[in-house]
Amino acid sequence: MSATTEPEPSSAAWDIREAAAQDWPGIWEILEPVIRAGETFTLDRNTTEDEARGRWFRQAPGQTFVAVGLGCDGGADGGRVLGTGELHANQGGGGSHVANAGYAVHPACAGRGLARALCAYSLDAARAAGFRAMQFNAVVESNVRAVAAWKSMGFDVLANIPEAFNHPSLGYVGLYVMYRKL
Amino acid sequence: MSATTEPEPSSAAWDIREAAAQDWPGIWEILEPVIRAGETFTLDRNTTEDEARGRWFRQAPGQTFVAVGLGCDGGADGGRVLGTGELHANQGGGGSHVANAGYAVHPACAGRGLARALCAYSLDAARAAGFRAMQFNAVVESNVRAVAAWKSMGFDVLANIPEAFNHPSLGYVGLYVMYRKL
Repeated sequence: MSATTEPEPSSAAWDIREAAAQDWPGIWEILEPVIRAGETFTLDRNTTEDEARGRWFRQAPGQTFVAVGLGCDGGADGGRVLGTGELHANQGGGGSHVANAGYAVHPACAGRGLARALCAYSLDAARAAGFRAMQFNAVVESNVRAVAAWKSMGFDVLANIPEAFNHPSLGYVGLYVMYRKL
Repeated sequence: MSATTEPEPSSAAWDIREAAAQDWPGIWEILEPVIRAGETFTLDRNTTEDEARGRWFRQAPGQTFVAVGLGCDGGADGGRVLGTGELHANQGGGGSHVANAGYAVHPACAGRGLARALCAYSLDAARAAGFRAMQFNAVVESNVRAVAAWKSMGFDVLANIPEAFNHPSLGYVGLYVMYRKL
């Protein structure tokens, strides 16, 4: 084992599975602060809970999924939603073989490898559903942890759309288009 | 005047204006064959007329517009829809200052400069609505006339998403991400 300042991801800390309707309250607990902060998602900060649920739950060949576990802050409330993700076709018609995905992680779980675990799940699920590649359209340049995570999962930055995101505190920053084959 | 094999665009041949509900039959006459062909739009080829209308008509700050005129094949049926376009925010939240747009032109008008005229209208309309840039997410690489037209309108290719479009006869081709400031 190498010395590290961050805990190693533990495969025992969570299970990732397809989301059910009754997972929504736990999902929303994670999504709402991310949406309200407006720092990483290209969603209106005033998005309502109903709008968010409508966007987050995806039909096949897309999928919505959750990571459930004991909690990353040592809590013992088993079954708690620690993170969530969704995947869907990035375009219709001739573009429908390329998936797009989004993820969100409970702040207490940051730095534990959960975002990468959710990404890995989505890559497997997308492959199983017949997608041939995955593309992220809008990774906020200042979200350096996410950019590094997706690079470590095999994604390349194909473009930086200049000043395409108005960050609440940083002002205009770029949006990365990231891509990998499946 | 320089010698050319294509007619020069004539500003008298059409007027471009915001679309009204009663323009839909003329718009659909142009959109339907483009959607059914599946060669340039990233829309399901089986998209219904109702779905298409719901997607094509945009709320402010977006806009839907038409070019009307005498017809490019010498017809005298004034008021006929010769081309159409729409613009909308490419992303929500922090990305909502970047516009996206789409266009379609009656086949009889190909090569007359109408696509570029629609694009120019959308650039002005987007600027007037407060957008700061325009981005195309999915310009089919094999649609060389469109790629050349958008380049001539000041767009740069920021990325070529490899094999991201399954063309009905050419197979997998790239999708260009194109961009220009306003």
